[in-house]
Amino acid sequence: MHYETPQFFHVMQYAAAADGDVIDMVSGNPDWEPPEAIRSGLRQYAASDAGNFQYPPSDGLTALREEIAARRTVEADRVIVTNGTGEANYLAMARAFDDARGDEVVLIDPVYPYYLGKTELLGGTPRLVATAADGGLDVTATCDAIGDQTALVVLNTPNNPTGAVYDSESIRAVVERAADHDALVVVDEVYDHFDFSGRFESALTLDADTVIVTSGVSKSMAITGFRVGYAVFPRNIIEAAKTRHMLVNVATSRPAQRAVLTAYRETDPDYYAAARDRLRSRIESFTAALDEAGAAYTTPDGAFYVLARFDDFPGTMANVKTLIDEIGVAGMPGATFGTARTDWIRFALVTPRVDEAADRLAAFFAQ
Amino acid sequence: MHYETPQFFHVMQYAAAADGDVIDMVSGNPDWEPPEAIRSGLRQYAASDAGNFQYPPSDGLTALREEIAARRTVEADRVIVTNGTGEANYLAMARAFDDARGDEVVLIDPVYPYYLGKTELLGGTPRLVATAADGGLDVTATCDAIGDQTALVVLNTPNNPTGAVYDSESIRAVVERAADHDALVVVDEVYDHFDFSGRFESALTLDADTVIVTSGVSKSMAITGFRVGYAVFPRNIIEAAKTRHMLVNVATSRPAQRAVLTAYRETDPDYYAAARDRLRSRIESFTAALDEAGAAYTTPDGAFYVLARFDDFPGTMANVKTLIDEIGVAGMPGATFGTARTDWIRFALVTPRVDEAADRLAAFFAQ
Repeated sequence: MHYETPQFFHVMQYAAAADGDVIDMVSGNPDWEPPEAIRSGLRQYAASDAGNFQYPPSDGLTALREEIAARRTVEADRVIVTNGTGEANYLAMARAFDDARGDEVVLIDPVYPYYLGKTELLGGTPRLVATAADGGLDVTATCDAIGDQTALVVLNTPNNPTGAVYDSESIRAVVERAADHDALVVVDEVYDHFDFSGRFESALTLDADTVIVTSGVSKSMAITGFRVGYAVFPRNIIEAAKTRHMLVNVATSRPAQRAVLTAYRETDPDYYAAARDRLRSRIESFTAALDEAGAAYTTPDGAFYVLARFDDFPGTMANVKTLIDEIGVAGMPGATFGTARTDWIRFALVTPRVDEAADRLAAFFAQ
Repeated sequence: MHYETPQFFHVMQYAAAADGDVIDMVSGNPDWEPPEAIRSGLRQYAASDAGNFQYPPSDGLTALREEIAARRTVEADRVIVTNGTGEANYLAMARAFDDARGDEVVLIDPVYPYYLGKTELLGGTPRLVATAADGGLDVTATCDAIGDQTALVVLNTPNNPTGAVYDSESIRAVVERAADHDALVVVDEVYDHFDFSGRFESALTLDADTVIVTSGVSKSMAITGFRVGYAVFPRNIIEAAKTRHMLVNVATSRPAQRAVLTAYRETDPDYYAAARDRLRSRIESFTAALDEAGAAYTTPDGAFYVLARFDDFPGTMANVKTLIDEIGVAGMPGATFGTARTDWIRFALVTPRVDEAADRLAAFFAQ
């Protein structure tokens, strides 16, 4: 296995070791408070009967699966509660290799690096397809890349790192082409609560028996450390995924499941709306600074990242380190995300200091 | 993948649906209270800064890894905190297949069924070796089964289901034979706190660079639902396991890690001693009843199971169901644990009603 420790860690370590004050725009940890019911749910759980400290059902607490199913308008027997969206993606991607469908995995470039790592872990061969110029899905190129060697296509909408929200018709076209070649499609919707466009529609609405949708509450509830995610499988292929989940993890940690169940039940929609408003405002000030800096970028329709390209300052690791050293702003080099955007830098807007970072970038590049 | 849902669930469902009052001696959930510090640790965590709700280090909270390392007398950089001992065994077993060492996995029969399932998941071929008559390791037979096709040997001590505690010299002989054939040895020590013999010695004392030791706190702290375990790898092979852990799970759930750290720090050794005393007393009354019933058994030296064979009443699924229906005692059929003890029934002594179950069995078989 040649997959290396993600460059995230490398940049974070470099930023942590830097002399000056560095604004962290590297990782995707929400910087705001989780719903209060996460805390109260944990407290209630801590006070509960010791029987509640023993194995939950392998596929998740029944009430939690039902809550997720109701929110996603699917039957509960299609849901597996996983150790974060990370495990959900692992189970979903692994499922494509159980049936000798081929060994190629079509990934959209720029690409979330863990999809590449999981592809390699599973013995697959990645096939990268560049996005359209605006970061959206290039439907024709994606469909052209799908053939008899394709086991799987992985989509992510709202997208990390481009911020694109894929429209339903584009996803449908890819799913149909994949089905023609006996390939599965995994759609990672972990940023589903961060749609600024109003256009996001879950791939579950396609009701296709070759589509697995993954998501979780790490981002929406600001609890990346709890590791609660889920996968919604078509009924005809779920059993092997349940078996893998049991053999790898037995079950997902119960205190975290119980806290999330409480938060689902007790959290007002305003909580999620406030997070969106906060991000909208950050996107506005950050992209205004990018305009001042003369940078190229696409205003994100969803998620919480901005990809930017600065004139004569390609997004190499060396230049990322220069920004850390010179102005105390830490982003991620484009090469972390495949081959299509190696000149770009990704900035995560999950810090209360976005405005300050924006000012620093504008001042640096306006020189 | 042909591995099926373990028979545990089948028996538990049958017992739950039975008319009468059934004493559950099926599953391995401790029935006693967790350390108080598990509850207080969760409460403290629930009140802590939101930053603590974000991703922990992938290989575990640093303080927790250091605590485990100190207890196991190893360096902290050899420890990965996992989603229960289940994931630890998955990572450890998977590691043997990364380097084309062969495809056979030597397993000791009777065998914990998840080892068989994981072997199949990983594309390995199980090779079962029967224990000695007393349930202990048959060193000669085990060594004879190891050859150039062997990738891995899996040992479990104290043993589920036989209750054997393997002596260090036996394990050393197997490890040396395995090393001669470039095979790894995984030693699952999850029952390490339940040694009644005083003879248990961790395989870590062998200090061998081909041995991976797994364990966890599910049993020792009576929190099977928290999913906190760990694997101690030789330094030369740990990196690929860390990568797999990151790609499959990203990290282990942080509330559970924090509660376990608190419990490690604040729990008196008396807590564990009380659990052992409780089990010793249960073993005594249960085996006394087996004597009355004229059953064959070996008094366990460790863990919390008893394997028993009754005259003219082989441990088939049908007979297990008969015991549920006739006397309300639910055990596990021997065929769940491989091929060597299909006539036997396993009883888990993790119910406060062991005495009552013992009386029922004695009365039934004394008829």
